[in-house]
Amino acid sequence: MDGSPSSATHQSPWMPFESRRRARDEKREAVLRTAVQLFLEQGYHGTTLNDVAERLNITKPALYNYFRGKDEILYECWAIGAERVDDRIGEIAAAGGSGLTKLRKLIVSYAELMTMDYGKSLVRFDVRDLSEHNRKIVQASKRKIDRAFRAYIKDGIADGSIKPCDVKLSAFAIAGSLNWIGHWYQPGGALSGEAIAREFAVRLTEGIAARQSGNKAKKPPANVKRGGTR
Amino acid sequence: MDGSPSSATHQSPWMPFESRRRARDEKREAVLRTAVQLFLEQGYHGTTLNDVAERLNITKPALYNYFRGKDEILYECWAIGAERVDDRIGEIAAAGGSGLTKLRKLIVSYAELMTMDYGKSLVRFDVRDLSEHNRKIVQASKRKIDRAFRAYIKDGIADGSIKPCDVKLSAFAIAGSLNWIGHWYQPGGALSGEAIAREFAVRLTEGIAARQSGNKAKKPPANVKRGGTR
Repeated sequence: MDGSPSSATHQSPWMPFESRRRARDEKREAVLRTAVQLFLEQGYHGTTLNDVAERLNITKPALYNYFRGKDEILYECWAIGAERVDDRIGEIAAAGGSGLTKLRKLIVSYAELMTMDYGKSLVRFDVRDLSEHNRKIVQASKRKIDRAFRAYIKDGIADGSIKPCDVKLSAFAIAGSLNWIGHWYQPGGALSGEAIAREFAVRLTEGIAARQSGNKAKKPPANVKRGGTR
Repeated sequence: MDGSPSSATHQSPWMPFESRRRARDEKREAVLRTAVQLFLEQGYHGTTLNDVAERLNITKPALYNYFRGKDEILYECWAIGAERVDDRIGEIAAAGGSGLTKLRKLIVSYAELMTMDYGKSLVRFDVRDLSEHNRKIVQASKRKIDRAFRAYIKDGIADGSIKPCDVKLSAFAIAGSLNWIGHWYQPGGALSGEAIAREFAVRLTEGIAARQSGNKAKKPPANVKRGGTR
């Protein structure tokens, strides 16, 4: 099923370079997917490379073709999750909009990520299990995400879409709810990851959204006075 | 400095039973405190019983007078944290009040606990590191806390202090923000544990509080128009 020109042009018994690289990438990806599933099921420390190899029907030495060790696999899971948030932060910055709009977009993306295995690994495993080099990269990436949450809240306060509030505490309160999804979410439940993400984008900003823009993204609750006479 | 009557009444070279028991309890408690500190600093898997013994200036065999192993220490840290929440749930039930009032009280208690070492252990370590027997006890206790959050939200919807909402999702959103405190809180920061707890009790219920009761527990922000024209 390989339609690339190179495979049609020669009949070498060896796979052409491109196909070989692709096959290798696919195998590496399969190792990652399987490993992260097992880490989530059994815990990182409760999973051996033998468990991973066994589930993939390969030998443990064959695993070492793709990764040098368990912590390298853990790091890679993390890197994939972090990269997705990172891409999203870039897109959000490019699209612009009010602080509240950007904050809600980041909440949606981050919440969705938390319902996926690679995202869960961002919050379910202990950075101290990584090598020092990889740990520093991961921690820098976590700080970057935290900074984005804070920056959008600050932007929102400046542009009036978010009420004045303690930026750090608000960012932590939101991030906490989102990270927790990675602990409780099970696929196949009553709500899809997407529905949870949309719901959280409203719910987690309700308290800090300034009133006139606070309701825009929300399905209008019929005639509820939000500012008034409490 | 032992003022108990028993120590004054006889001059035996052996400590009287009560004092001995108390000394033993204090030593056991010191082991626990030191162990949980080390688990939090270095991770559970990054901490050996030798590390704990060394910091206490005792031998590893001496540790076994108090605990049979590392996972028993972990379980005990957990049990202390869980017991405090449990006591608090009992007190809240006894005091009564609206669902929102009970929910805020539980948030305050749980948030404060998350700023303490025993509380942090409730969320920072992996239940899978416990023996099956202890794991079941811990999981039952976590379910009990979750049920209390949901019950208070349901009560609040029934008595009108909380707006109709998805009870499970609201409980998870609140619990997530609170559990996250156990990850980011460092003593000696800008806000005390108590201040964070009070702040979170308002902040995490702002979105779901019904309007007439929503502001009562909140310190009135001087002349800030909540509805207005930002």
